[in-house]
Amino acid sequence: MRMIFADAAVISHALAFEAALAQAEAAEGLIAREAAEQIAATCRSIEIDAALLADEVAHTGTLAIPLLRHLRAALPPEAAAALHKGATSQDLADTVLMLQTKAAAYDLRHDLQRIVRSLAILAKRHAGLPAIGRTLLQNALPIGFGLRLAQIALGLHEAVQVFDAAVASGARIQFGGAAGTRAGLAGRGVAVAAHLASTLKLAPSAPWHNRRIAIASIAAALGMVIGALGKFARDIALLSQDAVGEAREPLVEGRGGSSAMAHKRNPTGCQVALSAALRAPGLVAGILAGLPQEEERGLGGWQAEGPALADLFLLAAGSAAAMAVVADGLDIDEASIARNLSVAGIGEDIGESLAIVAALLAQIQEV
Amino acid sequence: MRMIFADAAVISHALAFEAALAQAEAAEGLIAREAAEQIAATCRSIEIDAALLADEVAHTGTLAIPLLRHLRAALPPEAAAALHKGATSQDLADTVLMLQTKAAAYDLRHDLQRIVRSLAILAKRHAGLPAIGRTLLQNALPIGFGLRLAQIALGLHEAVQVFDAAVASGARIQFGGAAGTRAGLAGRGVAVAAHLASTLKLAPSAPWHNRRIAIASIAAALGMVIGALGKFARDIALLSQDAVGEAREPLVEGRGGSSAMAHKRNPTGCQVALSAALRAPGLVAGILAGLPQEEERGLGGWQAEGPALADLFLLAAGSAAAMAVVADGLDIDEASIARNLSVAGIGEDIGESLAIVAALLAQIQEV
Amino acid sequence: MRMIFADAAVISHALAFEAALAQAEAAEGLIAREAAEQIAATCRSIEIDAALLADEVAHTGTLAIPLLRHLRAALPPEAAAALHKGATSQDLADTVLMLQTKAAAYDLRHDLQRIVRSLAILAKRHAGLPAIGRTLLQNALPIGFGLRLAQIALGLHEAVQVFDAAVASGARIQFGGAAGTRAGLAGRGVAVAAHLASTLKLAPSAPWHNRRIAIASIAAALGMVIGALGKFARDIALLSQDAVGEAREPLVEGRGGSSAMAHKRNPTGCQVALSAALRAPGLVAGILAGLPQEEERGLGGWQAEGPALADLFLLAAGSAAAMAVVADGLDIDEASIARNLSVAGIGEDIGESLAIVAALLAQIQEV
Amino acid sequence: MRMIFADAAVISHALAFEAALAQAEAAEGLIAREAAEQIAATCRSIEIDAALLADEVAHTGTLAIPLLRHLRAALPPEAAAALHKGATSQDLADTVLMLQTKAAAYDLRHDLQRIVRSLAILAKRHAGLPAIGRTLLQNALPIGFGLRLAQIALGLHEAVQVFDAAVASGARIQFGGAAGTRAGLAGRGVAVAAHLASTLKLAPSAPWHNRRIAIASIAAALGMVIGALGKFARDIALLSQDAVGEAREPLVEGRGGSSAMAHKRNPTGCQVALSAALRAPGLVAGILAGLPQEEERGLGGWQAEGPALADLFLLAAGSAAAMAVVADGLDIDEASIARNLSVAGIGEDIGESLAIVAALLAQIQEV
Repeated sequence: MRMIFADAAVISHALAFEAALAQAEAAEGLIAREAAEQIAATCRSIEIDAALLADEVAHTGTLAIPLLRHLRAALPPEAAAALHKGATSQDLADTVLMLQTKAAAYDLRHDLQRIVRSLAILAKRHAGLPAIGRTLLQNALPIGFGLRLAQIALGLHEAVQVFDAAVASGARIQFGGAAGTRAGLAGRGVAVAAHLASTLKLAPSAPWHNRRIAIASIAAALGMVIGALGKFARDIALLSQDAVGEAREPLVEGRGGSSAMAHKRNPTGCQVALSAALRAPGLVAGILAGLPQEEERGLGGWQAEGPALADLFLLAAGSAAAMAVVADGLDIDEASIARNLSVAGIGEDIGESLAIVAALLAQIQEV
Repeated sequence: MRMIFADAAVISHALAFEAALAQAEAAEGLIAREAAEQIAATCRSIEIDAALLADEVAHTGTLAIPLLRHLRAALPPEAAAALHKGATSQDLADTVLMLQTKAAAYDLRHDLQRIVRSLAILAKRHAGLPAIGRTLLQNALPIGFGLRLAQIALGLHEAVQVFDAAVASGARIQFGGAAGTRAGLAGRGVAVAAHLASTLKLAPSAPWHNRRIAIASIAAALGMVIGALGKFARDIALLSQDAVGEAREPLVEGRGGSSAMAHKRNPTGCQVALSAALRAPGLVAGILAGLPQEEERGLGGWQAEGPALADLFLLAAGSAAAMAVVADGLDIDEASIARNLSVAGIGEDIGESLAIVAALLAQIQEV
Repeated sequence: MRMIFADAAVISHALAFEAALAQAEAAEGLIAREAAEQIAATCRSIEIDAALLADEVAHTGTLAIPLLRHLRAALPPEAAAALHKGATSQDLADTVLMLQTKAAAYDLRHDLQRIVRSLAILAKRHAGLPAIGRTLLQNALPIGFGLRLAQIALGLHEAVQVFDAAVASGARIQFGGAAGTRAGLAGRGVAVAAHLASTLKLAPSAPWHNRRIAIASIAAALGMVIGALGKFARDIALLSQDAVGEAREPLVEGRGGSSAMAHKRNPTGCQVALSAALRAPGLVAGILAGLPQEEERGLGGWQAEGPALADLFLLAAGSAAAMAVVADGLDIDEASIARNLSVAGIGEDIGESLAIVAALLAQIQEV
Repeated sequence: MRMIFADAAVISHALAFEAALAQAEAAEGLIAREAAEQIAATCRSIEIDAALLADEVAHTGTLAIPLLRHLRAALPPEAAAALHKGATSQDLADTVLMLQTKAAAYDLRHDLQRIVRSLAILAKRHAGLPAIGRTLLQNALPIGFGLRLAQIALGLHEAVQVFDAAVASGARIQFGGAAGTRAGLAGRGVAVAAHLASTLKLAPSAPWHNRRIAIASIAAALGMVIGALGKFARDIALLSQDAVGEAREPLVEGRGGSSAMAHKRNPTGCQVALSAALRAPGLVAGILAGLPQEEERGLGGWQAEGPALADLFLLAAGSAAAMAVVADGLDIDEASIARNLSVAGIGEDIGESLAIVAALLAQIQEV
């Protein structure tokens, strides 16, 4: 995930955008084929120093300007003039962000599905194991231990569904030109956009420079994913308290230790997920706060989205990776579960836990 | 909208829940038919002092306990014993919240659709009217004036779609009992839930006491709706600056005045929407932050959701009402638009504005 | 606290502002003494229907306009003309908010100091009681039980200090007129402001219509107070888990029960505080997000502050009231503390707990 | 600022902490002088691969464990055993964060003071220049142009004062050991802490592992600084609209251009500041949300603070650097100011602008 949002990936996607744009415009007769081929070749071969470019971006306030300068310097004049035709900085920035989003979503989904699957298996296995249910942090009534896990699994699955829907409808090209009118393209803008989308394997779209619900949807969905992972972590952290002891993170060599106490086995995976769950809501809020962007392309709003979205993906990936390890190796202590239930002294009637677990898991599997 | 979230509505929904539950349980043979009828009759006829109940709720920390005490005092002993059977406080609280949500969503959608429609009509009418497009708050290239409105309209429409999807999948009954196992219902829990859902006209559902993605989805969608309205307001506020003058809120008798300056015509509708857009993101963040709720039913997390969701609905409704007036009566000044474009001195080529407006509006109408 | 932020209090403060302003301006010879006396008398005697005024405020978008209309209707023409001279809506709104803030701060501080004091007494009493310390939710090393309480007490005390400083420097009048220039006052603006401040018992101030750090400081401090109370609640909730049992909220008749489980003793006070701690950060964020207010007086930013600040005070007051009960009656179970420590099997060396408790409490007392 | 929060700086501060701790403990007779000298020498000379360490930190969940392993491997056994005596991971992490905070605060304050000073000079110079004042984005009454700048300057100055107070009271060492009791130090804990503080040039402090108001205060103050810079940026962005033209960012070679429109002069500095102002509130909220940390040292809460605080410092620094350039070179167009005022047609009475400017600037200078 760090690689997906690293400067090198940004440069690589940006070059892919410029190459695809040139080829699309050549196909529509807007620039010369030869120029497009030179652009594409240069985009493949050019080596741009990521650190230097980062400084230039900080200075100019946009990725496009220094990147295009590097490219133009490496191109013959005619091709240089044909580069980036009809496009604007935000076309490049938004499309790059969406290429990153698509790649990140693919990777993230993998870890999330693994967690849902592992939890579903555990839930099924322990569906009928009587355990004390707790509400408001107090002993309540018996539950099947698997019911707790099935709820966590379905909660995460629901968040993944929201996320998938947001990415499916949101991951699209941006191509509108300076004011979102596709000016200077001789009426071939839609066709260019279609080529571009097809080459970059993103959905085509009318310009959305100042229409940011797609970004907000993806961000909010990531907030939900991170929250659902946080719910998993919260429960495991509570269950692994020494006085409770019903479940623990797996022992991972070199993890969960303490610099001061050799006897400790800290819930380090849960810590990662809970920390992420504290940080994510504010990042989502920042993106929502930016929705009222000014006129055709705003000042500050869309520029704030990229870093926040990247942070959300990184937090989600870190949390998912940590909790995937927890889900895969969850150490369930049936003796402690039985003891805690017995101490509560309210019997073992787990109600319809089995049926509810089945109903919850069915919602996961049917998809 | 204030009425939907007023104490009186909460009481009314709560009584409807208890009546429907009793009847569902009678239908499944869990309580006597006569008791159910007495409960239903009492729920229809009882008068509960909303202010007194509010104090009792504040003291006990839950709506259910004082409400049930009032009901039991008005019931014969057998019916009193049959009341609320197998249910828990959160079953009542969540179902009430969902009944409010459904009613609120219905009302809100009406105003939102009105705005989208009004904007779409204006967008179509002014699609080809040359205007200066502005990016980063600077003059950029000409656009069709309707393009700006079409983008706003579709942005709001997209937010409404996210909201509709969230409500459609989230508005459901809560019925799980103390620990979410439907204990004490002789295995008839699913059937009781189905009756309950049918009577209350909400979707049936497995218990979701600690699985709050549905709530988070609705909250986030409201944040997007409010943000999309804020985008509309931001643009009108900018366009109505004296130095710009391209569009203004309609004159509404008694609104927009100044206590100090008789000559002013303040963009009061935009103020309402922009104020809401500042407040909403934090409310959404608060709900996302509560996702990691403890075990079977959490401590503090779900209790924080109700007020925040109500606030979001109230903000959305206030913003939508204000901006509906603006959309319906938007005062577009073609002379100023022409003058601003002419001063910019960059011609009148609006590129593919007409085609893009058509494409944007098609996405609204096809639904 | 509800009364402090109720509509009736707003009206009462607003009338006090107009009366004080008229008298200040009469003292400076800007309006006739007789007019000022009529205004003051009318402000004392007028009865304004709070519900009606609320509707009018919603319609006009400002409190001042309908309030002044009611007042003018009750005044002879000359006095009516002298009313609100040189003032603007925001002068009224901000000063009212500060009068509420001052009253609310006074009340809140009382409950907070009570909690700090109760905790300090308990901390001292149990400073040397060996208990297991827990880090990352795992048993760590022994502590003096009072150390935990002393940390909570000082944390809350620190938040109170931040809050006191913010209120002390922020609670001041607003008086600048339409554009913050005190125009139309014949150069007597500073003198009028001084009278006004003196009458209303707020600090005098240059206009701060668009300079909102004071509001943000108070809001952030309330967020810290609520967070510090949340820390207290989190610990008591954890300690009162059945498997831990080291401390519990006092039994309060009619509180903490469950609608489904008679045996439960829910940490209802902690629930209130933890719920508040989830909601507050987003409210603070909303106020911070509004800081970049436009020009002399902004559109949407300052209008969003009042409701958010009121919510923060209400949350803080509710949390403080709930946790004051907990602090006063905290039920500490020495047997459970001893048992949990013994089970941990790591001895009873509480290090320098006694000295640290003394150092922490000294920081509270010295103030 | 990037360097202050880079991995290399973390390592350097961490080594300084371990060296200072060893020397403090030797001075108090807790470890051998020779061991302390070996530790200090190794801390000076060891080279740790930052990228490798970052991976190890991600794996173990704490900085201390892998760092100490590297150090121990480079030390003779006795010195290795004496390393980090009585300290815990969070002692190291928090002290490092505070060392970074102190350095970052020093740098940030420099840029902020420069902005305040530049604005104050401009405010004084243009205090009496008649300009149209704008409220709710509409022409209101005339102001002295410098009044606008003086308000911005004092707003920023107020935020800096809050920030300075927060850093002054918050930048302190952390040293409490595993459970915050300073166990295992033979009662010399306070003395060790005093040495440590003195060497590291931070304030001494009782342990504050779970008492995080200081962190929250610094974060909130950074949010205010960023918001105050955002206010500056908002106004310049509005004033630099083509239709307004009263002030513009200075032309900076290579900045503010457009990849699509050669004629544009974008307010790129304002963009940086406004983008930061959107992102900061959520980061502050995340830190406030983490205040209710569990027991002696929490799970997830304090771990979330470091990255959020670093982000806030980076945003503040980026915003301050960008706006310092704007303040220093602000391009004020008196002709446009005069024209806009004249068009408004409401005369040139700037009220008490001069006196208010003087009063505002006096508050800056007196400090």
